[in-house]
Amino acid sequence: MLVTFSSDATEAEAAGALDHLKAKGANAILVPAAGVWRIVILSGQIAPEDIGFLPGVQEVRPVLSPFKLASRETCPEDTVVNVAGVKIGGGQPVVIAGPCAVEDEEQTYKAALMVKAAGAHLLRGGAYKPRTSPYSFQGLGRRGLEILAEAGRSVGLPVVTEVVATDDLELVSIYADVLQIGARNMQNFALLAAAGKAGKPILLKRGLSATIEEWLMAAEYILKTGNRQVILCERGIRTFETLTRNTLDLSAVVAAKVYSHLPVLVDPSHATGLPELIIPLSRAATAAGADGVMVEVHPEPCEAKCDGFQALTAKELSQLIEEVRKGAECR
Amino acid sequence: MLVTFSSDATEAEAAGALDHLKAKGANAILVPAAGVWRIVILSGQIAPEDIGFLPGVQEVRPVLSPFKLASRETCPEDTVVNVAGVKIGGGQPVVIAGPCAVEDEEQTYKAALMVKAAGAHLLRGGAYKPRTSPYSFQGLGRRGLEILAEAGRSVGLPVVTEVVATDDLELVSIYADVLQIGARNMQNFALLAAAGKAGKPILLKRGLSATIEEWLMAAEYILKTGNRQVILCERGIRTFETLTRNTLDLSAVVAAKVYSHLPVLVDPSHATGLPELIIPLSRAATAAGADGVMVEVHPEPCEAKCDGFQALTAKELSQLIEEVRKGAECR
Amino acid sequence: MLVTFSSDATEAEAAGALDHLKAKGANAILVPAAGVWRIVILSGQIAPEDIGFLPGVQEVRPVLSPFKLASRETCPEDTVVNVAGVKIGGGQPVVIAGPCAVEDEEQTYKAALMVKAAGAHLLRGGAYKPRTSPYSFQGLGRRGLEILAEAGRSVGLPVVTEVVATDDLELVSIYADVLQIGARNMQNFALLAAAGKAGKPILLKRGLSATIEEWLMAAEYILKTGNRQVILCERGIRTFETLTRNTLDLSAVVAAKVYSHLPVLVDPSHATGLPELIIPLSRAATAAGADGVMVEVHPEPCEAKCDGFQALTAKELSQLIEEVRKGAECR
Amino acid sequence: MLVTFSSDATEAEAAGALDHLKAKGANAILVPAAGVWRIVILSGQIAPEDIGFLPGVQEVRPVLSPFKLASRETCPEDTVVNVAGVKIGGGQPVVIAGPCAVEDEEQTYKAALMVKAAGAHLLRGGAYKPRTSPYSFQGLGRRGLEILAEAGRSVGLPVVTEVVATDDLELVSIYADVLQIGARNMQNFALLAAAGKAGKPILLKRGLSATIEEWLMAAEYILKTGNRQVILCERGIRTFETLTRNTLDLSAVVAAKVYSHLPVLVDPSHATGLPELIIPLSRAATAAGADGVMVEVHPEPCEAKCDGFQALTAKELSQLIEEVRKGAECR
Repeated sequence: MLVTFSSDATEAEAAGALDHLKAKGANAILVPAAGVWRIVILSGQIAPEDIGFLPGVQEVRPVLSPFKLASRETCPEDTVVNVAGVKIGGGQPVVIAGPCAVEDEEQTYKAALMVKAAGAHLLRGGAYKPRTSPYSFQGLGRRGLEILAEAGRSVGLPVVTEVVATDDLELVSIYADVLQIGARNMQNFALLAAAGKAGKPILLKRGLSATIEEWLMAAEYILKTGNRQVILCERGIRTFETLTRNTLDLSAVVAAKVYSHLPVLVDPSHATGLPELIIPLSRAATAAGADGVMVEVHPEPCEAKCDGFQALTAKELSQLIEEVRKGAECR
Repeated sequence: MLVTFSSDATEAEAAGALDHLKAKGANAILVPAAGVWRIVILSGQIAPEDIGFLPGVQEVRPVLSPFKLASRETCPEDTVVNVAGVKIGGGQPVVIAGPCAVEDEEQTYKAALMVKAAGAHLLRGGAYKPRTSPYSFQGLGRRGLEILAEAGRSVGLPVVTEVVATDDLELVSIYADVLQIGARNMQNFALLAAAGKAGKPILLKRGLSATIEEWLMAAEYILKTGNRQVILCERGIRTFETLTRNTLDLSAVVAAKVYSHLPVLVDPSHATGLPELIIPLSRAATAAGADGVMVEVHPEPCEAKCDGFQALTAKELSQLIEEVRKGAECR
Repeated sequence: MLVTFSSDATEAEAAGALDHLKAKGANAILVPAAGVWRIVILSGQIAPEDIGFLPGVQEVRPVLSPFKLASRETCPEDTVVNVAGVKIGGGQPVVIAGPCAVEDEEQTYKAALMVKAAGAHLLRGGAYKPRTSPYSFQGLGRRGLEILAEAGRSVGLPVVTEVVATDDLELVSIYADVLQIGARNMQNFALLAAAGKAGKPILLKRGLSATIEEWLMAAEYILKTGNRQVILCERGIRTFETLTRNTLDLSAVVAAKVYSHLPVLVDPSHATGLPELIIPLSRAATAAGADGVMVEVHPEPCEAKCDGFQALTAKELSQLIEEVRKGAECR
Repeated sequence: MLVTFSSDATEAEAAGALDHLKAKGANAILVPAAGVWRIVILSGQIAPEDIGFLPGVQEVRPVLSPFKLASRETCPEDTVVNVAGVKIGGGQPVVIAGPCAVEDEEQTYKAALMVKAAGAHLLRGGAYKPRTSPYSFQGLGRRGLEILAEAGRSVGLPVVTEVVATDDLELVSIYADVLQIGARNMQNFALLAAAGKAGKPILLKRGLSATIEEWLMAAEYILKTGNRQVILCERGIRTFETLTRNTLDLSAVVAAKVYSHLPVLVDPSHATGLPELIIPLSRAATAAGADGVMVEVHPEPCEAKCDGFQALTAKELSQLIEEVRKGAECR
């Protein structure tokens, strides 16, 4: 159920109602947004009449969506995630760029310079790489985190990096501004819950064959921890098509924006694997309503240790940022 | 092989070369575009030295693409299909709208008025409906064609309608300005070849699980008849996702524009089945590079005999046309 | 609705009831099976009380399945299709084998000898080949039909061949014992209806991305013509998997046997494309309940004009037949 | 590279060669099977001439498969996993049965009695349930493990249970005879590696959209820890089909048996979700070459907290075991 407070209700009233509900055995969560207090009751034997009389309560109604906290039913306003001053979801599209993997200081620093010079907003780079083969390069681990954070700091960009295991969370949280949960871990529920508690914004990629509902339910696992800084990221789904690496699903982006209040990014690099498709699809992504894109760049694509063939050059990145802006402006 | 003539070569020189090739047993086709004559040799034992000496010939080189005529290799310029003055592929986005099925005169005429008033460019409507069940409404047939053509004429819009059988081609060609080949018939090769010979522009929908290459190869079956007025239309592919009716594949639109010279439309109605997704995805489609969209409208969606739930209202159609224009302008 | 007659009702009573229903405007069809007369009413404003009083009528009840004639609801007994003495669906598994395409007399005759010697029951071979590319070998057409029929006659095997266009139906029907409708034409409804009327048994392949229900609905288009000799054939569906050519869906075979009375074959050659998988999957197919398999063989696989890599040798075919028999016996 | 020793080579010779390789910086692993010593060199700058002279070495050759340890290239013999005396992969099919979730002592004990009485070989039951929704029943955790282990002990069956997080591994390993890695965690590489080190047999389910190669590469992550007791389990993949819950891919089972030496089970409950399909597909699974099946049963399916609709009754389980046996015998 959703408990909405009147616009002049105080924080004390909202907190009091929450205590009352918890005392009655409910699992409930306070959802502050747009200057209105709301409480979403996730479970527990609570009847509307148990709440309606509480001071400040204006309305009590059922939540029909299976993803209670991610749904616009319980939060009609767009969520804006603030990453060191960069607003994701606030109307201006953001571009996150960087190498697939942090390989060494020089490559990462050069990439960071490229990313900064082009005007992108966040630096990405993998220190822990989930690879199909145990014999592929698995990332530099802690050393990779240090290099990435230092590169970000030196050019003045917050950093996004993937976390693949609960055991790494503490360490990754020291270096990262945004924790990325990759497609293969979208339903690694233990990782979702633990990452949620780390107190950092979380970029949640859609699984390779996750339905839109499953994706939003995965976000729900994070939101349920009380962490509301969740950024969704569509990165292509598995289909029969072989020309493109995956099939970018912009309907999912629109659906996520319609049914949820969370910001949504698009990763056209992994979705297509083809540089000539990345720029037009990035423009289409923001035209569809995406809040930005995340792409792979590399100072020397041909020498990349991972996914070099889909990495953009500096010039392509500048063009992409311009197109992403145009796409956002046309909506 | 592709034979390119010099820019001052004459039609007589091109025709002479074609005769020469045919006399040598080749299957070859003349491709006139952008003021330059070209010949594509589809088959036959022809060596470059058999052609290079012919008057007007500037260059002879192999065609690597499996879709020789649909490829930009043999025609770098965008093909523009002219339908009674409406240019499809010429930079300005077009909107084709109308009811899923022609049901009766009143419904069709009302829909035509809606479509015209909103500013769309062509009227669509089905007289022959390919339905999963033999017990579903199969369309009005000849009577439906008459009603559609009359409605188009009365409001001043060219009409698009589907042809599902070679036996119907002659009749449908009398009434239609554009012949539509539906997704289920994309690899009905007998129909493709026969339709190609009807001398009308052909709108070729992508099959429900056709790869991008198979789609372009289906276009090739039409182009091989000498009919170059082929319009591609992406309408969503089958995936595991169930929230949307199909998954709209805008990567396929971009890929078709990159690798082929043919105009490409998008049908977001069949792709999504959800009115709230149709408008944002239409804007994204033209932002991605699509040459327009085809949508379903109905004067009374709730009473439609087929797919009423995804039909747009007059107001939604006006908004869609505006958004499609914005999407095209941002690229 | 399904009208069931008592076991001692006469053909005259059934025919009388049918006339009565047609006079009332119903579209109804007589379904004779297992010595009991039944009428399925496909459409029309008929109330149970309009029928119940007719002589011989024992029961009138609604048909819930969308595929009324293909469903076990209206025909609980297994349909057995008799092809020149070979019973398909009668408990003994059948094996249909032959080359992908009829290439010439020698190849076809050698293949027919192989097929006969191994103990297979029908000879297959394509004279009209639906090919992705218009530049691939399209089959020998009429000459191919003649060669196939002659090869079948000389070794004493009935023949199965694909028909791809309504215009070819009359000709193909002269030569073929079974008409095959290929996967790409599964929803070519004009072809289904026309083929149904040709009076020959029809082997209906499942479309590359057809649901089980759509497959049975396609069969319904044939059954509705009054032709009850329909054989279903599962040949693999399109998925993300790339190791196998398609994904063989044996659940669909079991579901088709459970929900429908029609015989079901499996084509493991097209489903897998890998000779080492064909034999174990053929055994699994009959163990699952399939009524037989259809496979590709070639006297010289390496010289085949089409799909040679998946063609079995004589020795492999003998082993396959043995395994198919074992699979059927274990159920 | 694969180093094969002569049949009379001693363990000391094999161990000596391994030490030699490690001293040279190689990552190498000893693969003892069928009385022959083998070493697989996973990485390191080793030339064949560095090894060929070592005592006992018979042959050195490259390993082409990407899944070096899972491949039959490095271990041609079938791996047999021995779980408390039950041999999985040894020719006799095994049946693992039990409830989806451990709900309480009574339900689990009743289920265990059913499973034992029917003649199944292992008891399954979930104490940690990975659920799409955070609001669905998540399992009893430690209490569930205790109940399951006690139920297994009391009826004399080893138990299989899923582990969803590295933090739970130690606890689950105390109670479980086989650790199950679920489909959603197939590429949770941190969990694979940690589970491999727990020293227990591991049942690895195929991911919902994992290719066959990715599945075997996931097994490789476990094998690389030195744990060779890996059991693969096909449980259906995601496709467009909606009648069945997923699409059971028996081609993957055959492929896994052909290309790998690991035992392969099939889970027809999750693959189909339809009780009427489970038994025929179980028979087909062993006929295809599967080493057994894993199914869900429940003493009172209608009251199950999870997936009750696909749970078998005691009578159905007995029939399934009989059919699984018949399927295995026919191959």
